Amino acid sequence: MTTVNIIGTGNVAWHLAKAIQPLSQYELKTIAGRSKKGLASFTKLAHSCVLLDQLTAADITIIAVSDDAITEVSKTLSYNSGLFVHTSGSVDITALSGFKQYGVFYPLQSFSKEDQVDFKEIPMCIEAGSDKGITMLSTLGQALSKNVTTITSEQRRQLHLAAVFVNNFSNHCFTLGQELCEKHNLSFDLLKPLLHKTAQKAIMQDPAQSQTGPAKRNDYHTIASHLELLEDEAYKNIYTTLSKAITTYYGEKL
Amino acid sequence: MTTVNIIGTGNVAWHLAKAIQPLSQYELKTIAGRSKKGLASFTKLAHSCVLLDQLTAADITIIAVSDDAITEVSKTLSYNSGLFVHTSGSVDITALSGFKQYGVFYPLQSFSKEDQVDFKEIPMCIEAGSDKGITMLSTLGQALSKNVTTITSEQRRQLHLAAVFVNNFSNHCFTLGQELCEKHNLSFDLLKPLLHKTAQKAIMQDPAQSQTGPAKRNDYHTIASHLELLEDEAYKNIYTTLSKAITTYYGEKL
Repeated sequence: MTTVNIIGTGNVAWHLAKAIQPLSQYELKTIAGRSKKGLASFTKLAHSCVLLDQLTAADITIIAVSDDAITEVSKTLSYNSGLFVHTSGSVDITALSGFKQYGVFYPLQSFSKEDQVDFKEIPMCIEAGSDKGITMLSTLGQALSKNVTTITSEQRRQLHLAAVFVNNFSNHCFTLGQELCEKHNLSFDLLKPLLHKTAQKAIMQDPAQSQTGPAKRNDYHTIASHLELLEDEAYKNIYTTLSKAITTYYGEKL
Repeated sequence: MTTVNIIGTGNVAWHLAKAIQPLSQYELKTIAGRSKKGLASFTKLAHSCVLLDQLTAADITIIAVSDDAITEVSKTLSYNSGLFVHTSGSVDITALSGFKQYGVFYPLQSFSKEDQVDFKEIPMCIEAGSDKGITMLSTLGQALSKNVTTITSEQRRQLHLAAVFVNNFSNHCFTLGQELCEKHNLSFDLLKPLLHKTAQKAIMQDPAQSQTGPAKRNDYHTIASHLELLEDEAYKNIYTTLSKAITTYYGEKL
């Protein structure tokens, strides 16, 4: 039985705790937080919930706190045995190199606390300071997910950046589409089949192959009339920047 | 039995012809095109395929050609009986007001010829110059789709613009995410569960509620390190424009 501590009371900590708790080969020993308030909802998941300075050693300690807090939290810990990992997309593995055994256990997904999360479908990106660490994280990763990949800190940073484009930026485009609908008394439901199809095509085939629209076909007449329809400067700016990017991208590919 | 002509040999014409052909209440009379080459693949769908100047009247004539060609095509027609509609998201209904009966029959989806298309799920946006026209288009729309909505030309233009954000711009963000992966020897498959989840959340709940990421939480440190990772000026420009837009959007909502 491998013992696991989780540090943090945010969304990643919550979903990792819920996913690790039922695993027969693992014992979720303790959840540690910086305040009692955050820990309240975790009491049924682990054997104990404690404040950070009371945490005692486990085979694996998962530091699932915000990027900025990783270093500070790791300095507060009173033990240096077992494997320590953080769960961040952007923080280098060396942030934990003060520990004898260290690594990264990065679930590539955007979590909200109320989400139903199926860890089987979430890519687990792992990295460790030693082969033993890779073996431990690979075993835990495979107990949770169908997809465990070993990547470097540099690759992880690039992947996190790519995720900003795939999730944050595309989601803001959806939001602006919805705002435009609401402003003109149109239900956003009208665009949902298109949104679904857009994602489905990007997943099933190369998104570049599915690109359509006025910018792709250099339809300056439609682009000009769209810019006229957009009253807000911020919208115009996004429209122009992305249209130029699309025109350039496909122009260069010709 | 209502007779239907379709003018055009592009993707919209193709999928409309395939969807109308099996309807028991409708007879797909003729497909008309500007060249014999384009018509070749349509021969099994309609009773006849002819060049544009040989087309004879039907109860409904659907002009499914590119925006720029609508006016020219409508001038070429040798009859003015029955209802004439175009299928464009951006062209005003008045483009067809030279006909006695006219309207718009706009399927809100992005079509490729090889797609499997389920018209039941595609919102049909209709508009007509008379109540009789609305009734005819509503009946045809409901034979094809679960979702038929009457909207004005102005609303349709706004909807088409919103569709550019929801489909064209988000898809380009997916493309850039894929490029970043490939550049760093990472499989785009790693990002597909996130892409799927992003779309699913935008469909199931308000996309604004699902927004996450460095720009949303004003994490300038991560934004700066991402800009450093992006070597290409075009990427930097998109990253900056969208991050500012997100920061402003949620800053103003606070």
